[in-house]
Amino acid sequence: MYDLAGADPELRFSPYCWRTRFALAHKGLPVETIPWRFTETEAIAFSGQGKVPVIRDGSQVVNDSWAIAEYLEDHYPSPTLFGGTGGRAHALFVNSWADGVLLGAIARFIVRDLVDVIDPKDRDYFRSSREQRFGMTLEAVQAGREERLAAFRALLMPVRLVLRRQKWLGGSAPSYADFIVAGTLMWPRCASSFALLAADDPVENWFQQVRALYGGLGSQAKHA
Amino acid sequence: MYDLAGADPELRFSPYCWRTRFALAHKGLPVETIPWRFTETEAIAFSGQGKVPVIRDGSQVVNDSWAIAEYLEDHYPSPTLFGGTGGRAHALFVNSWADGVLLGAIARFIVRDLVDVIDPKDRDYFRSSREQRFGMTLEAVQAGREERLAAFRALLMPVRLVLRRQKWLGGSAPSYADFIVAGTLMWPRCASSFALLAADDPVENWFQQVRALYGGLGSQAKHA
Repeated sequence: MYDLAGADPELRFSPYCWRTRFALAHKGLPVETIPWRFTETEAIAFSGQGKVPVIRDGSQVVNDSWAIAEYLEDHYPSPTLFGGTGGRAHALFVNSWADGVLLGAIARFIVRDLVDVIDPKDRDYFRSSREQRFGMTLEAVQAGREERLAAFRALLMPVRLVLRRQKWLGGSAPSYADFIVAGTLMWPRCASSFALLAADDPVENWFQQVRALYGGLGSQAKHA
Repeated sequence: MYDLAGADPELRFSPYCWRTRFALAHKGLPVETIPWRFTETEAIAFSGQGKVPVIRDGSQVVNDSWAIAEYLEDHYPSPTLFGGTGGRAHALFVNSWADGVLLGAIARFIVRDLVDVIDPKDRDYFRSSREQRFGMTLEAVQAGREERLAAFRALLMPVRLVLRRQKWLGGSAPSYADFIVAGTLMWPRCASSFALLAADDPVENWFQQVRALYGGLGSQAKHA
């Protein structure tokens, strides 16, 4: 698996790669991760595109975290990631919420911090592409984050409401829905020292439990 | 089934009751709906609480739209509402998003309009309870809604992203996830003439298809 890395090759912080790492661990599949940087597009040209995660499983190459989750479920059915047909269809809603709401909101808190942890050779590409996307400097995007924290935490209400009724987003056992949201939260946790979640938030408590799974895959991850 | 009604007993607009109506229709279960108003708490006192939907199925009484969906799935398994264990667990995320994000956002567009359609005897209760919740007059809550429309439509991004990949929130067939979101959208559709969705929004196209299900249950519904 090609996994986004920082200047420190052990620092792994991609929210999409973390979804895949948790999914592979859930399936009990051993994986060799290859540190990859934003500008190393040639290294993954064999996948026909330029982003990670990319996995190679024998002769099969799969990219895109959602496509990888589907591939794993189809080729290694047990233990299940989705919990059936409806589980897969409805997990796509969680994935869409994480991509369409959560990722953009988190970016506004840590995108400037990312510059400090990514590989020096990635910095020009990263800054210019992100500043174009936001239409302002990364410093301006991140400014005033303490004041915006309450609004960010309010965005997590759907997760909080689910956790009032069940232990995991997947119900009585973790599912890919847990890995989508926890994988997304691994991004700020690993790439920044800014605390997005309050210590007494039930979301933090659940996130800690996801990190502890699979021998502490998430809790042992290096962070900035 | 006790179903929230307006001054016109045929006007039914509760987002929770609509979820249940769609769920009952999906199961092919015939239902007699009893028009109910906010202040008629005694009429449903037998359910041990004061809100609709409440269903009576033989000797069984169930309230709360989510609990009713689970009851229906457990007692009338086919056709499925959730698509299995994972589907049920993940549908709770969709339900939580609809309750925690969508309902509050819609309220800010139509809560004053509701006063005009509810039963006159409900008006004092409705206005005072909602004005207390919002901390301002209903007129103030609803003010400037045209300017807030773009931000509201952006909230529907997760639905839009799912519909890029599959026909229904439930995948290749409608599931309770579709009824949660479409049921919620029946609220502004029936209780207000304000158009929340753009005609060319894929969400509107999908909503139209949900309304057309079960002999046009949603499309034939009376609206203000």
